[in-house]
Amino acid sequence: MKKLEEYVTSIPDFPEEGIIFRDVTTILEDPNGLSLAVDGVRQMLEGVEYDSVIGPESRGFIFGVPVAYAEHKGFIPIRKKGKLPREVLSADYALEYGTATIEIHKDSIKPGQKVVIIDDLIATGGTIEAIIKLVEELGGEVVKICFIMELAGLKGREKLAGYDVESLIIYEGK
Amino acid sequence: MKKLEEYVTSIPDFPEEGIIFRDVTTILEDPNGLSLAVDGVRQMLEGVEYDSVIGPESRGFIFGVPVAYAEHKGFIPIRKKGKLPREVLSADYALEYGTATIEIHKDSIKPGQKVVIIDDLIATGGTIEAIIKLVEELGGEVVKICFIMELAGLKGREKLAGYDVESLIIYEGK
Repeated sequence: MKKLEEYVTSIPDFPEEGIIFRDVTTILEDPNGLSLAVDGVRQMLEGVEYDSVIGPESRGFIFGVPVAYAEHKGFIPIRKKGKLPREVLSADYALEYGTATIEIHKDSIKPGQKVVIIDDLIATGGTIEAIIKLVEELGGEVVKICFIMELAGLKGREKLAGYDVESLIIYEGK
Repeated sequence: MKKLEEYVTSIPDFPEEGIIFRDVTTILEDPNGLSLAVDGVRQMLEGVEYDSVIGPESRGFIFGVPVAYAEHKGFIPIRKKGKLPREVLSADYALEYGTATIEIHKDSIKPGQKVVIIDDLIATGGTIEAIIKLVEELGGEVVKICFIMELAGLKGREKLAGYDVESLIIYEGK
């Protein structure tokens, strides 16, 4: 049987020279690839006590919602600025050039609520750091952070010290 | 037991005056709401023969991926211009002011492949019309189109005449 990493397409020099883009769409398009990814995250969460899954727009939705559905948990979306219609809490994070802003509905998290964060990829970790800040400002607790892929060379995990972080596929480079 | 429509939050005058925004995030955040929505679409697809689920960024991902995962089908993402890393086919569609462009990977669909399209909402139907065009240009066949919500007053269904279209919740207005 094919392994999960064999479903990833590695595209050199996208979106710019020197970057190897790890394309998850070839995981999704194959029923076996999609099962391996979602089942892999569900296995990471065995024994973890939590109330909700959180995922950032839009690839965090792809892996977070099927896990939430299959485990009968709620799913809380993190979106780019201006997309969520009710009262939001915002956080900025650094991009290579400038900053971006993500938002969460203020009433999505109650004090003491335990959440797991799911995203497709950890690179520098900036987005996830901003999500943790939003969750904790609302009184929630991040009990686990799950990724499909990790670019270990970018050391994003260092930003998440003290949290339980796990990735299905670890690439040594950038 | 609460019905699916009771999980939707209706927000007057968002994103602009005169529009009632139908907010699906309150469906997602409740495990029972998420189950009702995804199970409802799975029921629509009972007896339908298809190979893949297609959904547009980003709310189509939210409902399309859990259906694909649970039914052991592949999921094909439709994304905004410039987001997909491999060779794409593009289609433009009209917005209130100007146009937008969506893309699909050219190798995602093989001639004769049967797909179902899943999205959160049908309003004027412009996006879905563009997705159908992409699928058919690649030789695929759209066998069913499923929505969580339909704004019947905007008559999007008229654009989809000849296709099998079903919505879980129908609002008479706009």
